[in-house]
Amino acid sequence: MLNNADPHRAADGVDLTPSRDAVVYEALKTEFRALSGDVPHFAAPPVIPFKTAERAGYISSFPHLVGTVYTAPTGAEPAVTDLVLTPAACHHVYPLVEDVTLEEPMLLTVEACCFRGEATSERGRLRSFRMIECVFLGGAEVVAQWRDSALEQVSDWLSGLGLEVDAAPANDPFFGSSSRVMASLQRSEELKWEVLAAVDADLVQAVASVNCHREHFGESFGFRDDEGALGHSACAAVGLDRVLLALRHRHGPDTAAWPRQLTARLGI
Amino acid sequence: MLNNADPHRAADGVDLTPSRDAVVYEALKTEFRALSGDVPHFAAPPVIPFKTAERAGYISSFPHLVGTVYTAPTGAEPAVTDLVLTPAACHHVYPLVEDVTLEEPMLLTVEACCFRGEATSERGRLRSFRMIECVFLGGAEVVAQWRDSALEQVSDWLSGLGLEVDAAPANDPFFGSSSRVMASLQRSEELKWEVLAAVDADLVQAVASVNCHREHFGESFGFRDDEGALGHSACAAVGLDRVLLALRHRHGPDTAAWPRQLTARLGI
Repeated sequence: MLNNADPHRAADGVDLTPSRDAVVYEALKTEFRALSGDVPHFAAPPVIPFKTAERAGYISSFPHLVGTVYTAPTGAEPAVTDLVLTPAACHHVYPLVEDVTLEEPMLLTVEACCFRGEATSERGRLRSFRMIECVFLGGAEVVAQWRDSALEQVSDWLSGLGLEVDAAPANDPFFGSSSRVMASLQRSEELKWEVLAAVDADLVQAVASVNCHREHFGESFGFRDDEGALGHSACAAVGLDRVLLALRHRHGPDTAAWPRQLTARLGI
Repeated sequence: MLNNADPHRAADGVDLTPSRDAVVYEALKTEFRALSGDVPHFAAPPVIPFKTAERAGYISSFPHLVGTVYTAPTGAEPAVTDLVLTPAACHHVYPLVEDVTLEEPMLLTVEACCFRGEATSERGRLRSFRMIECVFLGGAEVVAQWRDSALEQVSDWLSGLGLEVDAAPANDPFFGSSSRVMASLQRSEELKWEVLAAVDADLVQAVASVNCHREHFGESFGFRDDEGALGHSACAAVGLDRVLLALRHRHGPDTAAWPRQLTARLGI
């Protein structure tokens, strides 16, 4: 009756995760974190101040995806709170370096259950989903270098799990009011890369993305590099739910029947 | 600069969890789940259908605590969605047994990051917090028995972690429109027990609660016991953030300096 192997759908794009899948997510997070070595890690909450998301440029770039929290403290009409649902894990870390001068580049990882108000709910299109990210902060040059190495590292990691992945330059209007200019810049400078994998027959999705934000967050949150210039940042983000879908598509729906080398490696 | 030992406050009652604390939460969840043996476990999302929370009686009982998700799909005025923030982990499991006849009692565990729109944010009063629960479903008699044993088990577990705990009968208006009647019934029949511990000097809070819901959820979700009567249910819920506060208050702020027996046991 209670099948503990299949996810249970609570609503469109909102799943209840059975323990067998939760174990895989934990293993994937452990492996992803190990790529960066022993660096600070944060488990971020599923809500974030509106102001932080706004300063990150998310509100103006993706107004249609933002989930805003309302409450009715007096039981009367609902009123907007100071919180939105966390749209991306890394938005939680920039306030930690607000107005900080980075004596040396900083590397950290952060995970969160994120929310996006997606209008459709095909396979892999979730409203509530798990994201883990590695974030690198520092000067322009080392950040650009890190982004390149992170793209290779994440692609290699996913390949090592048996997935056939492709990296492709992409763009999204991530930069607020100047979004159209920035989208073009993103494409021409290849600031954003997506790592694509099949999550179903005839359905290829981005399971990870690696982004160079240039000085976007440095400007918004006031952090600087060791020479006093606006700090640059880059992140490598993995959509864990999609990685699990891709692994199931590749190795079969029953995680216990996956290749023994993989189950041993993941400890599942 | 980035102290990986202290939680970082993102907003009132909303914390970013450093890895040192995340490790303790994982260890506590593992221990709590082990109390119930090898039973189905679910990781629930931080959002839940409004309808589920409404059928659970939460919306009418705690309207002032509900966080409702709004989106603006067309970028225009925000509109209410079908989702609220998960107010209690166990609300996610009752739809799994909708209209089911339980041939035998069912025991399961479920965890979620929960949200309540608390008006204050003193120590231990969080808007976003971690809950893990054990839920027992079955006939009236076995459920009442389980509730009693669960109260002892959870109290013993917390005592075993070095906490001085007290169990006290409590009441909350958990039963919708008939809340006043039920609150009185809860007190007189001792349906709700809280397990209290000091989380700070002169600050004692409920770190867990053990509740008998009688046929409340059986009626709302239509599950029945093996004799065809309305199913009864009970749950034991632990507020993990408060347990960690209580452990810090008891053993010191630095988890690495806790008694070796405890750190060894928790594997931290």
